[in-house]
Amino acid sequence: MSISQATDTPSGPRSDGRGHDELRAITIERGWSDQAEGSALISFGRTKVLCTASFTNGVPRWMTGKGKGWVTAEYSMLPRSTNDRMDRESVKGKIGGRTHEISRLIGRSLRAVVDMKSLGENTIVIDCDVLQADGGTRTAAITGAYVALADALEWGRSKRFIGQNAKPLIDSVSAVSVGIIDGVPMLDLAYVEDVRAETDMNVVVTGRGLFVEVQGTAEGAPFDRSELDSLLDLALGGAADLTKLQVETLGR
Amino acid sequence: MSISQATDTPSGPRSDGRGHDELRAITIERGWSDQAEGSALISFGRTKVLCTASFTNGVPRWMTGKGKGWVTAEYSMLPRSTNDRMDRESVKGKIGGRTHEISRLIGRSLRAVVDMKSLGENTIVIDCDVLQADGGTRTAAITGAYVALADALEWGRSKRFIGQNAKPLIDSVSAVSVGIIDGVPMLDLAYVEDVRAETDMNVVVTGRGLFVEVQGTAEGAPFDRSELDSLLDLALGGAADLTKLQVETLGR
Amino acid sequence: MSISQATDTPSGPRSDGRGHDELRAITIERGWSDQAEGSALISFGRTKVLCTASFTNGVPRWMTGKGKGWVTAEYSMLPRSTNDRMDRESVKGKIGGRTHEISRLIGRSLRAVVDMKSLGENTIVIDCDVLQADGGTRTAAITGAYVALADALEWGRSKRFIGQNAKPLIDSVSAVSVGIIDGVPMLDLAYVEDVRAETDMNVVVTGRGLFVEVQGTAEGAPFDRSELDSLLDLALGGAADLTKLQVETLGR
Amino acid sequence: MSISQATDTPSGPRSDGRGHDELRAITIERGWSDQAEGSALISFGRTKVLCTASFTNGVPRWMTGKGKGWVTAEYSMLPRSTNDRMDRESVKGKIGGRTHEISRLIGRSLRAVVDMKSLGENTIVIDCDVLQADGGTRTAAITGAYVALADALEWGRSKRFIGQNAKPLIDSVSAVSVGIIDGVPMLDLAYVEDVRAETDMNVVVTGRGLFVEVQGTAEGAPFDRSELDSLLDLALGGAADLTKLQVETLGR
Amino acid sequence: MSISQATDTPSGPRSDGRGHDELRAITIERGWSDQAEGSALISFGRTKVLCTASFTNGVPRWMTGKGKGWVTAEYSMLPRSTNDRMDRESVKGKIGGRTHEISRLIGRSLRAVVDMKSLGENTIVIDCDVLQADGGTRTAAITGAYVALADALEWGRSKRFIGQNAKPLIDSVSAVSVGIIDGVPMLDLAYVEDVRAETDMNVVVTGRGLFVEVQGTAEGAPFDRSELDSLLDLALGGAADLTKLQVETLGR
Amino acid sequence: MSISQATDTPSGPRSDGRGHDELRAITIERGWSDQAEGSALISFGRTKVLCTASFTNGVPRWMTGKGKGWVTAEYSMLPRSTNDRMDRESVKGKIGGRTHEISRLIGRSLRAVVDMKSLGENTIVIDCDVLQADGGTRTAAITGAYVALADALEWGRSKRFIGQNAKPLIDSVSAVSVGIIDGVPMLDLAYVEDVRAETDMNVVVTGRGLFVEVQGTAEGAPFDRSELDSLLDLALGGAADLTKLQVETLGR
Repeated sequence: MSISQATDTPSGPRSDGRGHDELRAITIERGWSDQAEGSALISFGRTKVLCTASFTNGVPRWMTGKGKGWVTAEYSMLPRSTNDRMDRESVKGKIGGRTHEISRLIGRSLRAVVDMKSLGENTIVIDCDVLQADGGTRTAAITGAYVALADALEWGRSKRFIGQNAKPLIDSVSAVSVGIIDGVPMLDLAYVEDVRAETDMNVVVTGRGLFVEVQGTAEGAPFDRSELDSLLDLALGGAADLTKLQVETLGR
Repeated sequence: MSISQATDTPSGPRSDGRGHDELRAITIERGWSDQAEGSALISFGRTKVLCTASFTNGVPRWMTGKGKGWVTAEYSMLPRSTNDRMDRESVKGKIGGRTHEISRLIGRSLRAVVDMKSLGENTIVIDCDVLQADGGTRTAAITGAYVALADALEWGRSKRFIGQNAKPLIDSVSAVSVGIIDGVPMLDLAYVEDVRAETDMNVVVTGRGLFVEVQGTAEGAPFDRSELDSLLDLALGGAADLTKLQVETLGR
Repeated sequence: MSISQATDTPSGPRSDGRGHDELRAITIERGWSDQAEGSALISFGRTKVLCTASFTNGVPRWMTGKGKGWVTAEYSMLPRSTNDRMDRESVKGKIGGRTHEISRLIGRSLRAVVDMKSLGENTIVIDCDVLQADGGTRTAAITGAYVALADALEWGRSKRFIGQNAKPLIDSVSAVSVGIIDGVPMLDLAYVEDVRAETDMNVVVTGRGLFVEVQGTAEGAPFDRSELDSLLDLALGGAADLTKLQVETLGR
Repeated sequence: MSISQATDTPSGPRSDGRGHDELRAITIERGWSDQAEGSALISFGRTKVLCTASFTNGVPRWMTGKGKGWVTAEYSMLPRSTNDRMDRESVKGKIGGRTHEISRLIGRSLRAVVDMKSLGENTIVIDCDVLQADGGTRTAAITGAYVALADALEWGRSKRFIGQNAKPLIDSVSAVSVGIIDGVPMLDLAYVEDVRAETDMNVVVTGRGLFVEVQGTAEGAPFDRSELDSLLDLALGGAADLTKLQVETLGR
Repeated sequence: MSISQATDTPSGPRSDGRGHDELRAITIERGWSDQAEGSALISFGRTKVLCTASFTNGVPRWMTGKGKGWVTAEYSMLPRSTNDRMDRESVKGKIGGRTHEISRLIGRSLRAVVDMKSLGENTIVIDCDVLQADGGTRTAAITGAYVALADALEWGRSKRFIGQNAKPLIDSVSAVSVGIIDGVPMLDLAYVEDVRAETDMNVVVTGRGLFVEVQGTAEGAPFDRSELDSLLDLALGGAADLTKLQVETLGR
Repeated sequence: MSISQATDTPSGPRSDGRGHDELRAITIERGWSDQAEGSALISFGRTKVLCTASFTNGVPRWMTGKGKGWVTAEYSMLPRSTNDRMDRESVKGKIGGRTHEISRLIGRSLRAVVDMKSLGENTIVIDCDVLQADGGTRTAAITGAYVALADALEWGRSKRFIGQNAKPLIDSVSAVSVGIIDGVPMLDLAYVEDVRAETDMNVVVTGRGLFVEVQGTAEGAPFDRSELDSLLDLALGGAADLTKLQVETLGR
């Protein structure tokens, strides 16, 4: 597996020595929080995201009585998670477009692998707070959030808010970024790579290898069909590695 | 061309008689506004979006002196553009995530076909206001915004804010939605189709047929590589038709 | 009737050839919206306002059980409805004083001709969105809103939310601006006239010729009783013409 | 003069014994504030408004260099100035439509009697804070604000921010409410009268007896021309009394 | 008692002639408001705060059914209560940190002397609006708010919302500022003293002489234990005088 | 030193075995962040606060040219740092009173040990983000913020933004909470203790043992002078231990 060797054996052509198809060193610290029903502190290289899952028995009023649950997510960056300090959105009094967009992406990605009927009338809120940012914060957030979600679901089952035979998780989910830099497709971009990428794509993939989200953006020049294809190939490979790590982290 | 026949010859399998690869009737009323430097009222079937382009000589302070221009966009829906009235975002005092997300998408899509050096230190703000919504508002907005943008650039040239030999437009751009309904890939979803789609994708394509944005989302079940491929095929076909209409609308 | 001839026969002393007591060309496109229960796109010359009426069975909680309905209105301008682009109030995060003031004026004007008991426990929200502004947007909004309101009430009757014998509309209502320019009272000011007016008055009048609102403001020099009187005369004449057009538009 | 006798000799037909053309007891405490350049605590019966005028040498940046000054006003009610406590607008995070409307009215009324050229590049902000409300708060505010404004202008002259021969005040201004209750026109409505009025009008009048603002609203039934005329007569009489009191307060 | 003589006999070393342990002239105008259930206009020298207490039968929903009441407070300054005009928090759209902090302090201070069980399910909101500020606004607010609170509780008893034998007030409460200026501890700082103080302390004390709040801040140099002790001595003395005045004001 | 033994040897009378005068286990991870000029992840038992210091050359415009620097702080809690998830202040669109209050306290505490002249025209913003909360978050924040501040000042010196001989740090600063539970004064309250405390006090102390802030609040019963004295004794002892740890952490 290409993950853990990334920083150990800098043999590839990238600034941190990785090959174009190598992930950064990925670590997941499961159960980081003493308070949350599920949690994970995930690192993609220097990017660190704290993911917590808060389980509440019951659903918002407008959903009551339908026998279905709800999963939602909020993403935020600490003001000095980045190289230059950003103003807090709480101080500005409003949430920016990028924050909204990523929060919605994380929520959709997790809901894609949850069977809301099996979840029953329970609500899970996932918080993804970026403690340190070095590119790929949204993909790290989704990958770590899945681990927090899985543990919160087990907690719900242990408290009998979820039926013993219910299987609310229908698949796992992870995400990775890919991009084209100087014409070369690359996996899991660090910040210095991200700003140079002509095309940037975030891909959310289930454990079975199906797409949940494909979001490709031409930052510089528009891209053609074959470039799109090679980016998707890279992303599927990276996602497979992340899936393995999620499985190991969650045991069995 | 499949566009104008859509509502005339309801022979296909969809509720409005279209074939799975047919656009709705598309109309573009160029120069709708007496006030704006460029404008277009575009219809994708019952979806109607008023696009205006406001040209300002000069750029925001933080961009001054770099010899480059700026293009940005804002998207909004009238409260009763939809079947149920929505609260105004101005009354709620904040802009929702979906609005932010679409405004950003439109801005990126237009910037992909503008050479900021050729634009010079000028700013263009595109406003896309949905007067009536029936699915595909963001793709109609991008397609109409391009026409408004092109006219605003000509206005800027006529006022000599843009050099006579400058070519700020490096390509045209249009957008279309595609989705999978009951397992069948379909082009340009109307609202009733959109809510039933298992997968929903918005594709932004240049006049030369290159991708600017690919945003695919599994609303129901995740999708595989071959489904993704057939959606992209449909989208490229629809975008080619939209490009033709843009060219006709703008005259040569 | 002086309306439709205004732009056809520019014989008067004003910049657009109108006589001092002539309205601009007025058009009302009834039923513009496919979505709203009542709607009208009204033009006062180049001023264009889209008025929609949203009918909801039921009233806000604090009014429940009193057997009475509620009518309210919201006014807004598209950012590029004006000659210079204005910032959106949704982006600024607050609604300006002028917007509030006009929304309240429209709501009061419409409520003056509705019998809330006959309306029953139903709510009608009128949205007046200015697509293009050239003076007189609030008077055009009131005049068009009445048409949208009348149709929404008919819709409510057809759906049996309003009793078959109930007569919620006790009169019609329209509005027009008048002003003194270079000492001469003038009817229905266009924007270039409005900015030059010493005194500016908006008058809301019922079909029977009674006053609902009289709002006169000295922009330059204060005005005396006889000036006030001649402005009121002009306004009553203009309102009578608008009433006729409303009656024709709604058919009998 | 009918003012001060109002509460002393309750002989008229109104609940507080006034005649239909009598003002409530009016008092003006000039120079109430130790801090402001001009101030007045004005009472219209139980209605009490603290008016302060803040003089600043200089104008906002967008007005600089035009040799003209600026006068603006802000109106607000203390939360328990009314019979039921209202939420603070600062706590709600936004200013309501009524507050905006009245602030703008006060500002326009004062600007109508100021020659901005004579004021020079100076700014005066008038704050009208309602300490206790019993109807007529906006008319009391305008009447008291004039006194505060006059003193602030004198302060500016004494500090030589205003030329010794400049005459920035071209007239005085006061305001009074009138209304029709049970068919009878009445002057200076108290709260219990205001809620019963079929028609409610606020009239702003200069010391010379010219109109600055006429704002009449049919709260119940629309009103005709002769009702309008008798309301204007009453208002002009009341305003003349208020003018006399302003002159006495300011001394000669 | 040192209170009323302060401005009469300027014999001490401070700019207004007070001794270092003398309060400014304190006045309390009980029942200032015709509207509120309890009210007091309190002056600490030139500092004037209008305190109103609004009594509502019932508690917020989240407290219902516990048989306990609630007391809360809001503090605000009029924009021109200070030497330089401040922007209104309602206009800025948010409440500043200092305002929040003082509102919370007043609320806690009052709750410390109320037995919520005896109050029963009733809510009292105290509004403290600073009409004129010259240092010590928060301590004046607490001292005046107690008087307003006491009257509102009596009102509640008279209306039988509070039981005839209930004793919701378990003590009285007042507050005073102390500070060290040029090394000398001083009581009840006026604004000119406050800005020069090296250490500034606000002390809230019950009628029995117990501490409710002690908030000491080193504005200049940190302070040692003996300085702290002498400040507390001064504060206890001042609070005893304020307690006496509160007792006199409320009658026996 | 009583710190590190706390959780190792539960011999005392408190729920976690500490003596009444023992701190929880305190750890400081200096330089946690790769991005910030100074940083520390501090733990007071299960309370974990990430403190970053952002150094900017230059000061806000209103301070320019005075040769002095500025230090400010912002405090925030992650939504699931607590046992029940809290709504984000960025989502609510406003910052609560408690957050404001603590941010201001941290800023004042740090400024008390910085010589602004020696700092020169540089700005340091301290962010204290609570990752996990178990009581004492504000005192942990101040204690950790000092370490981050010290490192940011060294960074500024190394970059020559601060003079080589300048000594901007005039002392160290730490903070600790104390409280009375069941009549017994206790040091460094955990959350379960905090909610039971009759009196709660936060004390900010310099390395030399002088007070910067003393904030005591009677949550239950008011407290007397001797209780205050014993709380201050405990606090000074705890602060001395924290100072030692800060010195060790920063080396020499």
